[in-house]
Amino acid sequence: MPELRRDPIIGRWVIIATERAKRPSAFLSFPKDEARRSGGKEYGESVERCPFCEGNESLTPPEITADRTEGQPNSPGWTVRVVPNKYPALEREGNLEKKGVGIFDTMNGVGAHEVIIDIPEHSLDIADISDGQSEKIIKAYLGRSVELKADQRYKYILIFRNYGRSAGASLEHPHSQLIALPIVPKRVNEELHSSLEYFNCKDRCVFCDILAQEAKDKERIVEENKFFISFCPFVSRFPYEIWIMPKEHRFHFSGLKREEIKPLGVILRDSMKKLKKLLDNPPYNYIIHTAPINGQERDYYHWHIEIMPKLVNVAGFEWGSGFYVNPVPPEEAANKLTKA
Amino acid sequence: MPELRRDPIIGRWVIIATERAKRPSAFLSFPKDEARRSGGKEYGESVERCPFCEGNESLTPPEITADRTEGQPNSPGWTVRVVPNKYPALEREGNLEKKGVGIFDTMNGVGAHEVIIDIPEHSLDIADISDGQSEKIIKAYLGRSVELKADQRYKYILIFRNYGRSAGASLEHPHSQLIALPIVPKRVNEELHSSLEYFNCKDRCVFCDILAQEAKDKERIVEENKFFISFCPFVSRFPYEIWIMPKEHRFHFSGLKREEIKPLGVILRDSMKKLKKLLDNPPYNYIIHTAPINGQERDYYHWHIEIMPKLVNVAGFEWGSGFYVNPVPPEEAANKLTKA
Repeated sequence: MPELRRDPIIGRWVIIATERAKRPSAFLSFPKDEARRSGGKEYGESVERCPFCEGNESLTPPEITADRTEGQPNSPGWTVRVVPNKYPALEREGNLEKKGVGIFDTMNGVGAHEVIIDIPEHSLDIADISDGQSEKIIKAYLGRSVELKADQRYKYILIFRNYGRSAGASLEHPHSQLIALPIVPKRVNEELHSSLEYFNCKDRCVFCDILAQEAKDKERIVEENKFFISFCPFVSRFPYEIWIMPKEHRFHFSGLKREEIKPLGVILRDSMKKLKKLLDNPPYNYIIHTAPINGQERDYYHWHIEIMPKLVNVAGFEWGSGFYVNPVPPEEAANKLTKA
Repeated sequence: MPELRRDPIIGRWVIIATERAKRPSAFLSFPKDEARRSGGKEYGESVERCPFCEGNESLTPPEITADRTEGQPNSPGWTVRVVPNKYPALEREGNLEKKGVGIFDTMNGVGAHEVIIDIPEHSLDIADISDGQSEKIIKAYLGRSVELKADQRYKYILIFRNYGRSAGASLEHPHSQLIALPIVPKRVNEELHSSLEYFNCKDRCVFCDILAQEAKDKERIVEENKFFISFCPFVSRFPYEIWIMPKEHRFHFSGLKREEIKPLGVILRDSMKKLKKLLDNPPYNYIIHTAPINGQERDYYHWHIEIMPKLVNVAGFEWGSGFYVNPVPPEEAANKLTKA
């Protein structure tokens, strides 16, 4: 089972997961043989052997759930399919155990790590799909969130997508991932802590204030519908970074209402379409930022999606300072995106 | 002049530096023409046109300082040469001005951004150099730190090295960088704040405690000399991550004593040599973590170098959680490195 270790300096947790080293292309440049034998091809697998393609269901662990038009579990006929990650960062079975090792703190790696195969077609991505399929993606995210919330061992559910090798996707077929964690991660705690401070000072949600400012300035908005807004934030870390936020104050993604599912899918698809067109199908990560499970962040936290195209490398300066250098002002990015 | 913008949620600063977009290969995959015309070659420049090679001094801005065996400034004959960054993230001239923009906070981008060309040979890296050259590198870091400390506008000096394109180096010729900042960066504040908390609780430096634990466990040590130790930390975020720490408690890098300069250069060179041999010349970042200029961190902070080989991509999970997944236990990493 993976081991969680806590850095005694800043409290960062690291998952030591030796199983992950067995993934095809776990390393960028080591071991030498693996990465290089592909001879410059970004991905090694063909459609015939892609574990996420229809007809290859036997190449994944048995499915957790699927949206099907026909067929039995683990056979063709699905539109969205959720499976356990074959090389999980955390393991589903077992009870949480914590112990000290010298001055260090450790924990066993209990958690869920799922793959949401949310597009049956190997060569399409979110930018290319129908309204209906984009709705199904959000429905799958929501369904898994609601189910995993019931497991008392978990404190946080993280849903994200890595697309393109340099954004960390180890398989070419588009897919999302979900990780349920036994602790609230540091990065989330930081956001919660700081937005509570803001709330204590102003009695307002900082995200609502940002929305109001963006609506007033108007120069960084990319897409908008009845329930959601997508914009290049004033403090974008990365060129062409986009955030999608519910207009109404809402702290947990799993509180999404039935009538909001499709509009969220559509604004996500439309924002990704603009990114794909303007930047020639860039690698990207997107992440749903939400409050912890059963949290009390009702007033001061506001869930949202952060989309980060991977156009520049994060290097020594960013690692050492936590500062980001962004060569493209978000005003320019939004302007180009809306015209794309 | 670049503009600094502060994220109102977690207080992260971003430098909007449009000048940086003009760098050759500023983007990984956009604009299309630039990155792709190189036809798969990692770097475009030849030795004849490399601005950091001896004989091409006119291709850089005039030098700030150099260690010379002969010649005039900006001519051949140097062993280490320090120049302003041609595409700086911050600008040297001007006074610091702060203002609010709606709900946001901004600052003008005053600061120094220097390049330390610390190896005259284009094709060598720190792993390959002599004891004498490694001493000169540390001397250059120290000299620049001491000089820039005197400028009252700066609060923090960050020294780092990016090596290899995927670790963010935009030029192939090995070089280090220095950035002097008008504020203490978030990442540093985090370390200071947390190590102060540890000190308040235990009346001991957390880094000294880590050193004691590593010395006792013995299984993660890579190199050691009279003044310094290099080891794979118990909570390594990345495979084969190495930290170098002074054995004696010392809070600021610029407090380095004369007799420690060469031993630091040598342990850095030797650690990098092991990395290069074991991992086939991997891309990497290293960063000197030190206390702020004129800080009061005497008792609780301990400067050190963090070396992070770039073997895996940081992706959605890491961005969303601040958790890292490391497939190689540091005990295994240290064991392989010592045998390399």
